[in-house]
Amino acid sequence: MSIQQKMLAEFIGTLWLVLGGCGSAVIAAAFPDVGIGLLGVALAFGLTVLTMAFAIGHISGCHLNPAVSFGLWAGGRFPTAELAPYILAQVAGGIAGAGVLFLIASGQDGFSLAGGFASNGFGEHSPGGYSMTSVLITEVVMTLFFLLIILGATDARAPAGFAPIAIGLGLTLIHLISIPVSNTSVNPARSTGPALFVGDWALSQLWLFWVAPIAGAILAGMIFRFFEQPAEH
Amino acid sequence: MSIQQKMLAEFIGTLWLVLGGCGSAVIAAAFPDVGIGLLGVALAFGLTVLTMAFAIGHISGCHLNPAVSFGLWAGGRFPTAELAPYILAQVAGGIAGAGVLFLIASGQDGFSLAGGFASNGFGEHSPGGYSMTSVLITEVVMTLFFLLIILGATDARAPAGFAPIAIGLGLTLIHLISIPVSNTSVNPARSTGPALFVGDWALSQLWLFWVAPIAGAILAGMIFRFFEQPAEH
Amino acid sequence: MSIQQKMLAEFIGTLWLVLGGCGSAVIAAAFPDVGIGLLGVALAFGLTVLTMAFAIGHISGCHLNPAVSFGLWAGGRFPTAELAPYILAQVAGGIAGAGVLFLIASGQDGFSLAGGFASNGFGEHSPGGYSMTSVLITEVVMTLFFLLIILGATDARAPAGFAPIAIGLGLTLIHLISIPVSNTSVNPARSTGPALFVGDWALSQLWLFWVAPIAGAILAGMIFRFFEQPAEH
Amino acid sequence: MSIQQKMLAEFIGTLWLVLGGCGSAVIAAAFPDVGIGLLGVALAFGLTVLTMAFAIGHISGCHLNPAVSFGLWAGGRFPTAELAPYILAQVAGGIAGAGVLFLIASGQDGFSLAGGFASNGFGEHSPGGYSMTSVLITEVVMTLFFLLIILGATDARAPAGFAPIAIGLGLTLIHLISIPVSNTSVNPARSTGPALFVGDWALSQLWLFWVAPIAGAILAGMIFRFFEQPAEH
Repeated sequence: MSIQQKMLAEFIGTLWLVLGGCGSAVIAAAFPDVGIGLLGVALAFGLTVLTMAFAIGHISGCHLNPAVSFGLWAGGRFPTAELAPYILAQVAGGIAGAGVLFLIASGQDGFSLAGGFASNGFGEHSPGGYSMTSVLITEVVMTLFFLLIILGATDARAPAGFAPIAIGLGLTLIHLISIPVSNTSVNPARSTGPALFVGDWALSQLWLFWVAPIAGAILAGMIFRFFEQPAEH
Repeated sequence: MSIQQKMLAEFIGTLWLVLGGCGSAVIAAAFPDVGIGLLGVALAFGLTVLTMAFAIGHISGCHLNPAVSFGLWAGGRFPTAELAPYILAQVAGGIAGAGVLFLIASGQDGFSLAGGFASNGFGEHSPGGYSMTSVLITEVVMTLFFLLIILGATDARAPAGFAPIAIGLGLTLIHLISIPVSNTSVNPARSTGPALFVGDWALSQLWLFWVAPIAGAILAGMIFRFFEQPAEH
Repeated sequence: MSIQQKMLAEFIGTLWLVLGGCGSAVIAAAFPDVGIGLLGVALAFGLTVLTMAFAIGHISGCHLNPAVSFGLWAGGRFPTAELAPYILAQVAGGIAGAGVLFLIASGQDGFSLAGGFASNGFGEHSPGGYSMTSVLITEVVMTLFFLLIILGATDARAPAGFAPIAIGLGLTLIHLISIPVSNTSVNPARSTGPALFVGDWALSQLWLFWVAPIAGAILAGMIFRFFEQPAEH
Repeated sequence: MSIQQKMLAEFIGTLWLVLGGCGSAVIAAAFPDVGIGLLGVALAFGLTVLTMAFAIGHISGCHLNPAVSFGLWAGGRFPTAELAPYILAQVAGGIAGAGVLFLIASGQDGFSLAGGFASNGFGEHSPGGYSMTSVLITEVVMTLFFLLIILGATDARAPAGFAPIAIGLGLTLIHLISIPVSNTSVNPARSTGPALFVGDWALSQLWLFWVAPIAGAILAGMIFRFFEQPAEH
């Protein structure tokens, strides 16, 4: 595929991740009586990745996430030259996804960005009031495991074709654990989209959701290399 | 397969989609204390497609949806000559599904079509009171992504056999996001069945749920062709 | 495999279906504040079949249900001579599953069989008070579609290996729709186990949950044969 | 793979099982209004195994559980010499997982280990107040079926590649049934991690969650051998 085709795929996929994941949170999570809750939001985030990995995995690899691109690069699976264009397309997609969501959500009376618009945050902006340290540990550890799942499930020795299921449901699992802590990022592009609309605290806390996921992802790439050493004879 | 066999498969499958999806909404979503909520309804809609795609995918391709037939046609994957018979079978199936559901649901004291019978709507008939513009954007964008998932997951380069999972859970995801907006159509046959029973507003708003899904689907077919261009040398 | 091995597999599998499906309903559905609800019960029933189909599918075919055995027989996929031993093993497994569940559930203060023990029923014993006619239609139609899914997903032209997912999640879907109507049977062995413990109304209504599922299953076998006719030339 | 690589994989995987499963319970299950409930916790436990089985199954076999190692050993699938190092790595991983969870959870005001920290227990420490006998039967039977699923789904005659789905969702099913009874262990390493932090009753009841799962697992290994006998001629 050409780099333009890959970038369009990453743009579309990340748009879908933010529109689907954050959209389910903003629109459906707390719908009266029959809302989908955090379980539904966790499922939605995971299914954005599962569906796109089947749909565009053969085009761009379906990263949809700067931390994933960095982690695959650290694991020796992604070329340095494509890091910048991938991340550019992902961030643009994340912003576009937040934009489409804003268009839809603002068509309801009483909608307000003051509800947080699914932004990530810590301290008083953590859904459960978790400290910055908790959020930092959570984002590093969750992204680390996300990349271990990605690196392992796409390994040549893993069952072929199943990686989108493992990776998508892995993202669901991560949300099942950590939405109350950080609203769950593990993805700088996903954090950037809503933060640009909310501004204020969401922008001033955004740094953590770039630093921690990328740090966790690179750590995972390094750990995974240990598994690729040939056994001693 | 003969066109009669394909049409029977599309009829049966669309009957199942409406009976299962709308049925879970009408019968089980708001059951006291232990109701399945919008999350259960989203899962039910997706599983009607997942199960039928495995059961009849090799017979008719399992479209179950005029927008899907149009989108595959726009993507160059479905012959013009079969559009009309497929859509006829799908609409008949959607009506039959609503009919079976009516037979079952009306066996409960206090049942009334005034509850909406899972019809799609906008404005005051949107579950969350979303404007016509929001509903229009939602139905176009959701169907667009539904078709991107379908076109991508059934591509020869995607993992073989997994498309029913990607497509079925893709429909679940779409419902997780958009039930509060439009009650989620992305499928004119699904909208037509219940609307014929409810009449009134449901019929007068039905046009949107033919126009928007088909527009989104055709748009997806056009986008997908970009990915099929050979990379430049 | 020997018929003894097949019967043991059917016994174990049906025990698991009743223990898991009815067990989740009796023990966890209405647990205070965090109960799994009908959605959790629907998932549990489906997963008993999904897990067993992967575990013992290659031993007995994993019917776990007299209606499934009858439907496969009607579709020309199961020998007449094995109907009786399969059904015997399934009913014994259903009773054993209810027995193990009783042992566990009765270890909680305040447990009573008067709660229904997940028995199937109609009229005043339908969870939502649905009429006998509604329940009859529901059980016939739901089992019909269950068998269409089974016959289709195990067809030689369907993707290999995925049938346990299609069938298991198909049973989940059926429960998502119909628990409020009949508590969902589609399986005479599943109905018989709890009914023997509850006695009284559960036993006197048990006939319907033998007649309707088997009728629906045989109907499905007949419909499916239409799809196996070669196309005209 | 070398035994060091296998042990690291088991350590990482069991850490993930406890952090993800117990973490979802401690952090997200009872979150106000939109908490994931026992259904979300059941899904989380299952997905830790599903994701790790795809990621490290080809490295260590992904047991993550001393009962699984014993059951595979009893079924003739795992060498005696590796039992001790596997169990050592699993228990260490379980403790580390509880440690990371403690670091995160304690960053919320009002966090207290007195909430149980997802420990397993019986009698007054059973979530639903179930007796020791109920808990004992539950843990033996649930682990027995867990191993039947594992042994069956990894059998050479079962569909290749699907075992992580069957096994992971099997663990979800087990939790859907039995969290109210014992908080669900079926895994001595999972029980040991949180118990060390809670101390007191959790430690004094820990014996049951070593004895019962391992007994059930060995029983399953013995049952499964019956299915491996060649049919008589």
